[in-house]
Amino acid sequence: SLPLVFIAGPCAMEGRDFALRTALELREIFEAAGVDFIYKSSFDKANRTSSGSFRGVGMDEGLDILAEVREKAGVPVITDVHSPEQAAPVAAVVDMLQTPAFLCRQTDLIRAVAATGKPVNIKKGQFLAPWDMKNVLSKALEEGNEQIALCERGASFGYGNLVVDMRSFAIMAETGQPVVFDVTHSVQLPGGLGSSSGGQRHFVPTLARAGVAAGVAALFMEVHPDPDKAPCDGPNMIPFSELPKLLRLLKEMDALAKGL
Amino acid sequence: SLPLVFIAGPCAMEGRDFALRTALELREIFEAAGVDFIYKSSFDKANRTSSGSFRGVGMDEGLDILAEVREKAGVPVITDVHSPEQAAPVAAVVDMLQTPAFLCRQTDLIRAVAATGKPVNIKKGQFLAPWDMKNVLSKALEEGNEQIALCERGASFGYGNLVVDMRSFAIMAETGQPVVFDVTHSVQLPGGLGSSSGGQRHFVPTLARAGVAAGVAALFMEVHPDPDKAPCDGPNMIPFSELPKLLRLLKEMDALAKGL
Amino acid sequence: SLPLVFIAGPCAMEGRDFALRTALELREIFEAAGVDFIYKSSFDKANRTSSGSFRGVGMDEGLDILAEVREKAGVPVITDVHSPEQAAPVAAVVDMLQTPAFLCRQTDLIRAVAATGKPVNIKKGQFLAPWDMKNVLSKALEEGNEQIALCERGASFGYGNLVVDMRSFAIMAETGQPVVFDVTHSVQLPGGLGSSSGGQRHFVPTLARAGVAAGVAALFMEVHPDPDKAPCDGPNMIPFSELPKLLRLLKEMDALAKGL
Amino acid sequence: SLPLVFIAGPCAMEGRDFALRTALELREIFEAAGVDFIYKSSFDKANRTSSGSFRGVGMDEGLDILAEVREKAGVPVITDVHSPEQAAPVAAVVDMLQTPAFLCRQTDLIRAVAATGKPVNIKKGQFLAPWDMKNVLSKALEEGNEQIALCERGASFGYGNLVVDMRSFAIMAETGQPVVFDVTHSVQLPGGLGSSSGGQRHFVPTLARAGVAAGVAALFMEVHPDPDKAPCDGPNMIPFSELPKLLRLLKEMDALAKGL
Repeated sequence: SLPLVFIAGPCAMEGRDFALRTALELREIFEAAGVDFIYKSSFDKANRTSSGSFRGVGMDEGLDILAEVREKAGVPVITDVHSPEQAAPVAAVVDMLQTPAFLCRQTDLIRAVAATGKPVNIKKGQFLAPWDMKNVLSKALEEGNEQIALCERGASFGYGNLVVDMRSFAIMAETGQPVVFDVTHSVQLPGGLGSSSGGQRHFVPTLARAGVAAGVAALFMEVHPDPDKAPCDGPNMIPFSELPKLLRLLKEMDALAKGL
Repeated sequence: SLPLVFIAGPCAMEGRDFALRTALELREIFEAAGVDFIYKSSFDKANRTSSGSFRGVGMDEGLDILAEVREKAGVPVITDVHSPEQAAPVAAVVDMLQTPAFLCRQTDLIRAVAATGKPVNIKKGQFLAPWDMKNVLSKALEEGNEQIALCERGASFGYGNLVVDMRSFAIMAETGQPVVFDVTHSVQLPGGLGSSSGGQRHFVPTLARAGVAAGVAALFMEVHPDPDKAPCDGPNMIPFSELPKLLRLLKEMDALAKGL
Repeated sequence: SLPLVFIAGPCAMEGRDFALRTALELREIFEAAGVDFIYKSSFDKANRTSSGSFRGVGMDEGLDILAEVREKAGVPVITDVHSPEQAAPVAAVVDMLQTPAFLCRQTDLIRAVAATGKPVNIKKGQFLAPWDMKNVLSKALEEGNEQIALCERGASFGYGNLVVDMRSFAIMAETGQPVVFDVTHSVQLPGGLGSSSGGQRHFVPTLARAGVAAGVAALFMEVHPDPDKAPCDGPNMIPFSELPKLLRLLKEMDALAKGL
Repeated sequence: SLPLVFIAGPCAMEGRDFALRTALELREIFEAAGVDFIYKSSFDKANRTSSGSFRGVGMDEGLDILAEVREKAGVPVITDVHSPEQAAPVAAVVDMLQTPAFLCRQTDLIRAVAATGKPVNIKKGQFLAPWDMKNVLSKALEEGNEQIALCERGASFGYGNLVVDMRSFAIMAETGQPVVFDVTHSVQLPGGLGSSSGGQRHFVPTLARAGVAAGVAALFMEVHPDPDKAPCDGPNMIPFSELPKLLRLLKEMDALAKGL
């Protein structure tokens, strides 16, 4: 077992300066806590609740920003891919690719990201049982890429609510692949605000502690300097200011859970 | 209220002869029952459970077949669209487009199909509340297309199971758009056969009667001359031989429910 | 298949005059519609959401009232039993006994009501799969009583919501026993009003039509002359004034579904 | 915050010698681990899946055994109460009472156990939202008893499955009362074995670690010297032999989570 790593960053790139600034701040915070992290940010919010929602800077601008973040802030980066065509250009820039939960059953997308040879974080659909991820994983492995992580982000639980089934970490770990826990999307309330999703940021520390104690390989957390002003996912992101204390606790808990 | 119409056909085009033959047989069956139908068949199964599953004949061949079916069998046709790029070429051939449930939140896809100006059947995701479809609908209406139907195909209910909430028909009908009930996909057991989805064909008549009595505008049913030999969705398709009796009952029930 | 019968009445006995008056009014309404019904009313609301909720007139007074209703209004009566000790005294008065959904797994209660020899309506718990009712049924049959009906009243669907799975009617009917659909409790929103359950009365006609089309043997509906003034279950009861039209439609739909 | 305590013992009293022997063994195991525990065992399994299931030794014999266990093994004891009448006799013997999940909405039972003045562990129904427990709690507090613990044991998640929502610990803790996590019943598969419930014993360590990290006050675990030979709940109980290592880890994790 390896120590816990983080995938963290603001939901969306709100501009070049914003991305660079937040990457540098997060690098400092994570270095001080002594834990590794990959900077995550999206260039397109392709599946927002309603058409009035924020979409993002687009792929070309986004990849340019991520390349600069990578070089100037000296951090590895990860971003979402929404169609097979985006896989190659994104892989040319980032250290790791990610696929959206709603798209986990789209065979061509899974194959395309795996075929890049870069590590991939595949999010489990809200509609999928944890054991069904072995079929999704097979589609990726068949491309000859073994660097595939499987990610829990909550399962549909009635309408407008998600539940994290901690058994899913153990079930997905049986594949032998690293399991990621996307804790901030797990506290979303889908459609909860009428034309956008609500969120329950205050449950993030509880769920993060539980997931780390259960033994996940990585935690995915969307974080923001000022979540209430974020153009998307504000209700479930946590502020930078809460990170130092939380990271310290999670690092200790991880060491205990894994016997490190 | 208009009389019940059907969207019916084999899950996938299994070849040119198969498509034409089934369209002609179905035309005869539906004409004898005195109910209208649109012939449905897919050219690509883009989100199958596992990579070993049947994919289909592809878009070019599929559209060519559908054009021939349309002309020679004299029936209107509908098929699935999986990416924004497919919308225009598909619309050039078919009478109605359909979007997959997993993709109901992909903004660009919804906009692209709506922008064709052709009628569209938008399936509700297994992870979505019925009231959330108003946001999906808005994305389509903003393209100036008002011929948008909303389709129930079951909601996630624990792992490996779907439940049809009959309240959803009433909730989605409040938008003023026609509501379609995809009854055969509603009896799928996702992932139920390990590397493909299982199904409960024997519940189709019960659910179909219930949905029609609840007042849906259209029933979507995948049907096949010999479901147990079908390359996909066999466990939930119903055989042609059961249609005449079922259609007669559903037609009477619809007239009663709608006071026609 | 026998024609649809109804179990109907106000949630609780609000007093002797109220019970007698509502029984007489309902008798008139149901006779005019040409359908049989059993008058239902509770003497104790033993499992209300909060302690401030209405409890009822108690067993002694309640049975006395039911005996009078039975005699003076000339209608058969049914009421709930909450403990094994209540089974015999209740059975001495009523035509049919009923057990609450939360208590469907309490072995002694099921046995006690069955041992009375009177017909029993056993409600399926919100936490139970329809196929699990065969075990509950066995407990009753072992007492030598074959007049046992099984009743659907919604299944837990996330928090604060119930969903009616129409497949459950077919599954429970496989036992050979009559299946009852408690349509008004199925539209409850448990805990939805903070210290009492909310309800969605407006969905009752949709669900009732669907359930009758699916082929249930009986419909259970709580009805009230003025639901908004009822001491309990007001949000999900339907007013007497809506019954004539609804009963007429349901009777026709039942005849069609059952080929009567 | 106080250190984690345990409620542990075999599901049912399998006889006087068995109870005494297991209590002594558990006392040794828990003392060696340096954690407090209350010995739990049931005298009646009043709500088993089917009538062929094991029922238990009965209340009189059971209380006699528990009194002997308490005196000879020198451990505090807890047991279930199934009707209001049982509350006083049980309270005369045990240190803490417990109410079954299915019965959490039975007002008279909650009041009766609270009225004994002894500490009570109230299990949350599988059909209840965590915030609904405040209404249940109020019924108990109104009897003047403040020693009330609230217990999570999984929520209905589709058919035949339960899910533990870790948010529920935080939500129920807002009442100010201690929160108990019944981890072994949470891995039950209700009705999973046809005429009895199945279980997933292998998930207990994962869920226990997660719950302790989330900050629960107490863990409830059914344990057995040889679970596969137990007359009830075998599939979800864990063997004594696994306790020492698990307790050591959970104790450390609790200290970390609570900053002790």
